[in-house]
Amino acid sequence: MRTPRNQRYVADIQPAPLPDGSLLAAVDLGSNSFHLIIARVEHDEMRPVEALSEKVQLGAGVVDDKLSEDAIQRGLDCLSRFAQLLGSVEPERVRVVGTNALRQAHNRRDFTVPAREILGTRVDVIYGSEEARLVYLGVAHTLADDARARLVVDIGGGSTEFIIGERFEPRRLESLQMGCVTFTRDCFPDGKITEGNYKRAYNMARLEVSHIAGRFNRKHWEECVGSSGTLNAIDALVTAAGWSSGGITRKALAKLEKKLLKFKQFEDINLPGLSDNRRNVIVAGVAITCALFDILDIQEMRTSKGALREGVIYDLMGRLSHEDVRERTVNALAQRYSVDEGTANIVERRCRLFYDATRAAWKLDKQDWELLHWTARTHEIGTAISHKHFNRHSAYLLRNADLPGFSQEEQELMAVLAQGQRGKADSSLQEAIAQARHTHLHYLLAILRLAGRFKYVEALEELPDFNVEAEEASIALAFPEGWMDSHPLTVSELEQEQAQLGKLGLELRFA
Amino acid sequence: MRTPRNQRYVADIQPAPLPDGSLLAAVDLGSNSFHLIIARVEHDEMRPVEALSEKVQLGAGVVDDKLSEDAIQRGLDCLSRFAQLLGSVEPERVRVVGTNALRQAHNRRDFTVPAREILGTRVDVIYGSEEARLVYLGVAHTLADDARARLVVDIGGGSTEFIIGERFEPRRLESLQMGCVTFTRDCFPDGKITEGNYKRAYNMARLEVSHIAGRFNRKHWEECVGSSGTLNAIDALVTAAGWSSGGITRKALAKLEKKLLKFKQFEDINLPGLSDNRRNVIVAGVAITCALFDILDIQEMRTSKGALREGVIYDLMGRLSHEDVRERTVNALAQRYSVDEGTANIVERRCRLFYDATRAAWKLDKQDWELLHWTARTHEIGTAISHKHFNRHSAYLLRNADLPGFSQEEQELMAVLAQGQRGKADSSLQEAIAQARHTHLHYLLAILRLAGRFKYVEALEELPDFNVEAEEASIALAFPEGWMDSHPLTVSELEQEQAQLGKLGLELRFA
Repeated sequence: MRTPRNQRYVADIQPAPLPDGSLLAAVDLGSNSFHLIIARVEHDEMRPVEALSEKVQLGAGVVDDKLSEDAIQRGLDCLSRFAQLLGSVEPERVRVVGTNALRQAHNRRDFTVPAREILGTRVDVIYGSEEARLVYLGVAHTLADDARARLVVDIGGGSTEFIIGERFEPRRLESLQMGCVTFTRDCFPDGKITEGNYKRAYNMARLEVSHIAGRFNRKHWEECVGSSGTLNAIDALVTAAGWSSGGITRKALAKLEKKLLKFKQFEDINLPGLSDNRRNVIVAGVAITCALFDILDIQEMRTSKGALREGVIYDLMGRLSHEDVRERTVNALAQRYSVDEGTANIVERRCRLFYDATRAAWKLDKQDWELLHWTARTHEIGTAISHKHFNRHSAYLLRNADLPGFSQEEQELMAVLAQGQRGKADSSLQEAIAQARHTHLHYLLAILRLAGRFKYVEALEELPDFNVEAEEASIALAFPEGWMDSHPLTVSELEQEQAQLGKLGLELRFA
Repeated sequence: MRTPRNQRYVADIQPAPLPDGSLLAAVDLGSNSFHLIIARVEHDEMRPVEALSEKVQLGAGVVDDKLSEDAIQRGLDCLSRFAQLLGSVEPERVRVVGTNALRQAHNRRDFTVPAREILGTRVDVIYGSEEARLVYLGVAHTLADDARARLVVDIGGGSTEFIIGERFEPRRLESLQMGCVTFTRDCFPDGKITEGNYKRAYNMARLEVSHIAGRFNRKHWEECVGSSGTLNAIDALVTAAGWSSGGITRKALAKLEKKLLKFKQFEDINLPGLSDNRRNVIVAGVAITCALFDILDIQEMRTSKGALREGVIYDLMGRLSHEDVRERTVNALAQRYSVDEGTANIVERRCRLFYDATRAAWKLDKQDWELLHWTARTHEIGTAISHKHFNRHSAYLLRNADLPGFSQEEQELMAVLAQGQRGKADSSLQEAIAQARHTHLHYLLAILRLAGRFKYVEALEELPDFNVEAEEASIALAFPEGWMDSHPLTVSELEQEQAQLGKLGLELRFA
């Protein structure tokens, strides 16, 4: 039976909706705190079952873009405690995301590799824009479903996310390198509170925010919602003091600012409603908040308990049931760069045939197919820049573009696949493969390259489904009788491919 | 007097139409031959006054991507002869373009720098896609102005250009690394003609062309026109032999192929209508031509005397009078990547103010303004990929995209400007500046960076035209009384800028 030529694949067989009562879990490895949430699905909404937070302050342990051994140990210890609770959830229903501290640390693998061991689930380090998207998702689900344009702000330990959106759709995302932990470290190194230190933090924040003022100021939204520990803590403080009846206003902020500046050092701070965890970062948090109120012209901000972790849960619900946002991203990318859909279909179909024929011998899994699927659909996006070296341009875009739903690692793997889709398997490609540290990558490259070798002839005539056999270090193609004689060009391409796959440690045979 | 805030600039004051009788000249530094043409403008068309060609075979002198000393000397000797004729043409009405051999040679400056001395005009090394565009322009002007889709093919010494277009508009361009000089060198190294050698050349060509078959085969055009020495020579041969009454058919090609294969070596070839210059490259030329007839399903091809050099003349006419295609390219680029036009205007206007104030002290010229103008209009294109590091993405696009009308050097200079528009003037930027070997580049960077420092505040409020004074290694800004006090953010940005411009060897003062 032949697969229809123009069939499109989704990441895998369309998944069924998640049954009510299913347990999902999200772990947020933030720069200030680690958070765990376990939730039960009920009528397409989530209901939290367990929630745990620990102040790990990973961000404070990043010096010169390197995570200290101490910080790594603090983080892993915390995860060991989280792991006990996670035992009740199926591993594929757990998602673990890392944010600014892990984005910054060059040695992040020293943490993520043992973390995976402890949790039984891969750690997805995500870009700032992806963090912003997930925060928005978490916040939006806590708000009334009205169509007003809203600005959501999340001041984290190492970065601050800004999102303008409507309903569940983020429209504009930005992530700035500014957070309450890093600002505390840089402006209040000894825990002393002075006018000068405070002014410095406030001015640094103003400068950062001014870069996005044109696109995020009050002209662009109707209401403003704050998320994250810092903003919820400020809301609690000004409400407890009676300066507000819920929500943060500029006036209330000014009063809080004045009050805080009366303390000489962090340890003296004593305000009703302030938790011990927040004491050391609240001054920097207020400086940042004042700056963004002033620069973005915010008069009033309500707060929401929804945050990254809730967003991760909602995103996971989508992946596991009705919609994987990564599908939408890949389609948007293909459209933006005018990919020829016919060619993408041809290559994807051929990838699927190879994948099905090799998955047992090469131990490929669903995540491998997802990578092939996404890369096949976007492998030609680079032609929008130039046909010359288009594979490198595709790789550049896959590596650097903001791709909602994808982790840094997924983007990097797709980039290596796109780069190596054709041409010589030279040392720079082999270096990229080694860097990616993904045990199946050379197999996936072989599949994509072989699929590409047929695409030009396949665009002109319909090809037979030939036989494919794989062993651990080899792949053999058997064409119908006489086919090779009538396709000398493809044969000469396959001969070239033998040499290249050889460099990737795979023997290619065909007859 | 204030410049209106939203004014848009073109590359310079809109030029007047070229008066009839003006002389223009083009020099084509091809891989097989160098060509010079001097033409007179008559009613918006060109009439050739002088034409000169010499078989320099620069392409044969490129080994391991390096131009041999011998080849450089052959080329420069030829240019010395050309230079005598060029004396009659104003330097700014001469354009010199280099193609495949110079694109490939890493040591191209060993040729282009002395060439500039000899000719008094810069050598523009152009990308294959730009070569294709100019060839199309040259050919289109020799054909009837009808609206049929046509394929134009130009087999050069080192590359072959394919263009599908209508009237004077190229719609689809491709350049393949395949030419009669390089194929002769690679497949017929000793000048012997054998079935085997010929078959190898033919198969190599088929493989190359098959990559573009889907986009350039007969489905996409109504007529096919050949340009360049090789195709004109083939046309002359088959017509002289009586196998065609003008134009090349597949049948006539088969006869020519058979005839050529009867000779044992190049020097024996003796055919009516073949010039001595063509004898050594005609066999490879026929192999390439047969391959592209077969793969693109061409039945018949007429030939045109129009070629790259005529295209360069028509392009130059546009630049000097009604339309510079580079303007159109920059606008298309800004549109494709959704640049905010308001911001581009703000930055360009500020660049112009700085340029006008510094041009005397820094000896800036019209070409410098053009670079600033184009970069200002496109400096934010990288935001379409990601806001994070958008300057790097802008640079990537400016360096790698097919930009009709631009030379490789212009693209490289714009890329360095875009990359260095903000952030640290670190060693990688300084390396890029040194590589570009353009004496004004650090001045242009200073202007663009300073303009960018005002863009966020300028987007929010209208700024005064402050005073600017420049000396060779310094620039001083004088703001109106009190302005600095009310703009502490800009002041702190300028303080940061002092350190960065210092690294570029410029002292920034402001008060």
